[in-house]
Amino acid sequence: MNPLITLRVPATSANLGSGYDALGMAVSLYNIFKVMELLPYGEFKIEAHGEGASELTNPKLNLVITSYKMTCERWGVTAPGFSLWCHNIVPLSRGLGSSAGAVCAGVLIAKYLTGYKADEDELLRAMTVIEGHPDNVAPCYLGGMVVSCWDGIDLRYIRLPELPPEILCVIAVPEERVNTLDARNALPKVVPFEDAVFNLGRAALLTAAWATGKWSYLKWGMDDKLHQPYRIKLFSGGEVIFSRVQELPECISVAISGSGPSVIALVNGAAHRVAEAMCRTFTEHGVRSQFFVTDGSSEGARVDIAPTLKEAILEVSCNK
Amino acid sequence: MNPLITLRVPATSANLGSGYDALGMAVSLYNIFKVMELLPYGEFKIEAHGEGASELTNPKLNLVITSYKMTCERWGVTAPGFSLWCHNIVPLSRGLGSSAGAVCAGVLIAKYLTGYKADEDELLRAMTVIEGHPDNVAPCYLGGMVVSCWDGIDLRYIRLPELPPEILCVIAVPEERVNTLDARNALPKVVPFEDAVFNLGRAALLTAAWATGKWSYLKWGMDDKLHQPYRIKLFSGGEVIFSRVQELPECISVAISGSGPSVIALVNGAAHRVAEAMCRTFTEHGVRSQFFVTDGSSEGARVDIAPTLKEAILEVSCNK
Repeated sequence: MNPLITLRVPATSANLGSGYDALGMAVSLYNIFKVMELLPYGEFKIEAHGEGASELTNPKLNLVITSYKMTCERWGVTAPGFSLWCHNIVPLSRGLGSSAGAVCAGVLIAKYLTGYKADEDELLRAMTVIEGHPDNVAPCYLGGMVVSCWDGIDLRYIRLPELPPEILCVIAVPEERVNTLDARNALPKVVPFEDAVFNLGRAALLTAAWATGKWSYLKWGMDDKLHQPYRIKLFSGGEVIFSRVQELPECISVAISGSGPSVIALVNGAAHRVAEAMCRTFTEHGVRSQFFVTDGSSEGARVDIAPTLKEAILEVSCNK
Repeated sequence: MNPLITLRVPATSANLGSGYDALGMAVSLYNIFKVMELLPYGEFKIEAHGEGASELTNPKLNLVITSYKMTCERWGVTAPGFSLWCHNIVPLSRGLGSSAGAVCAGVLIAKYLTGYKADEDELLRAMTVIEGHPDNVAPCYLGGMVVSCWDGIDLRYIRLPELPPEILCVIAVPEERVNTLDARNALPKVVPFEDAVFNLGRAALLTAAWATGKWSYLKWGMDDKLHQPYRIKLFSGGEVIFSRVQELPECISVAISGSGPSVIALVNGAAHRVAEAMCRTFTEHGVRSQFFVTDGSSEGARVDIAPTLKEAILEVSCNK
């Protein structure tokens, strides 16, 4: 059976050191979601494959389905149920934006099944409301590197140019997860004024470097005093990885991906050496891990619509 | 008598709200410095005109001269004294970078009188060491908007594109000065974590907006929670100006210029209405003020060298 809608959404790496809660980039690792057939209102079926498949099959908890339902509610539209097929490459709850990808997919399915006229801004707002922050959903939907700010009502975002092809992303993903509550509690309530000034300067420099292609400034730009010094202690081997990887000449810079525990390095040269150093360090600390070597994905969410979709929507609404 | 060196250096406005210590822009108000004739080593004469002229005539305190001497010492070169003629347009100690302009002039005079091979990086490092921070000297020397970071040893800076011609800068300059120590002491020692995150996000957005020409995002990007809420109380009328000016439809955004007390508004449309609102508010608070309407200066320090300079240097060194 041909799918009615096929979605491909990238993994994303938020924060990138200095840019806590503001910067995020898409990387070329993709999850695939397919809407296979439409079902009556409120009925959903899921067939999940790949990473964390067993955690994704309950429609009441599946984030694609819940995001779909929340979006229909937000827009005041009723829409059919559907059977969802998904294949996950992006590991869950490891700081690589798999939940943002699911939210992105749910909102886009709502758009295409309801025909609701949502422009880019509204789609991103809908995604941000569900996810709680824009720094993963924005690059997931738009691709590339995105600067975003959200005040709880309004959203501003700017997409920056792609990384050049010679800069690769090496991402090491440990099997151990970090508890989200622990990651939040590890952050201080107040910070020294000079640390705040340090980070805003570095985030501005990182943004300017990315916007103007001054790639040699990435290391300076990604330096951070606000969150990584606190969170790096939460996962085994984190501190050692940071110091080891930064010594390698091919490593431009290294950061915790999102709230961790994955670690992302931007690399110019022998990516395998960086990947090996990361995974060896995790192993030395008793943690199994896998790695990915990707480029910065210039492409965001990709949607393919079957020509038969309109017909299928008409049919299911007649049978309501 | 024709001058041997003529320098024109722009005023600068640092911080721009969110970008505390990191962002600064040149504005099209210029001070002129002329090296009229060379004098024996250690001898200096000054003829000063314009703003604050009476404060500038002591060679032991004049910042052009002291910066010149410090730079020669930094480079390990001996160099002649000179007679300096200057005309100041930029009011002193009002947050418009007049001291950065003097430092910039002193360093450049050192370069041209000694022939020391200093590239752009070294010139900016020399200026930053004297000034203590790069956010005024960098745009003063380079022109335009500059993002800069300084860790006490190394300097990184990126120049961003100019403001478009339809965006003007309205700068209101009160007669009252703010004591630098008061301005420093007004800043908190620690800040809430979320304020630090707020500012870094806005500074990144401002930088991205400036780099990509998304001028409608300047207002969001310039929003600040780190320093202006504390410093705005230090000068009469500050808080009222902020709220009044932000209500005017032609005002894009408003910020304290540097550490104040001047206020800078970016304006698209009737600049005189914004200027009038600012100065009227100062008047209502018993403070005299003047205003300037400028554009963002794309030009930094401009140097004109007389053909006779080499000859004059040779002559003074023979007479040593």
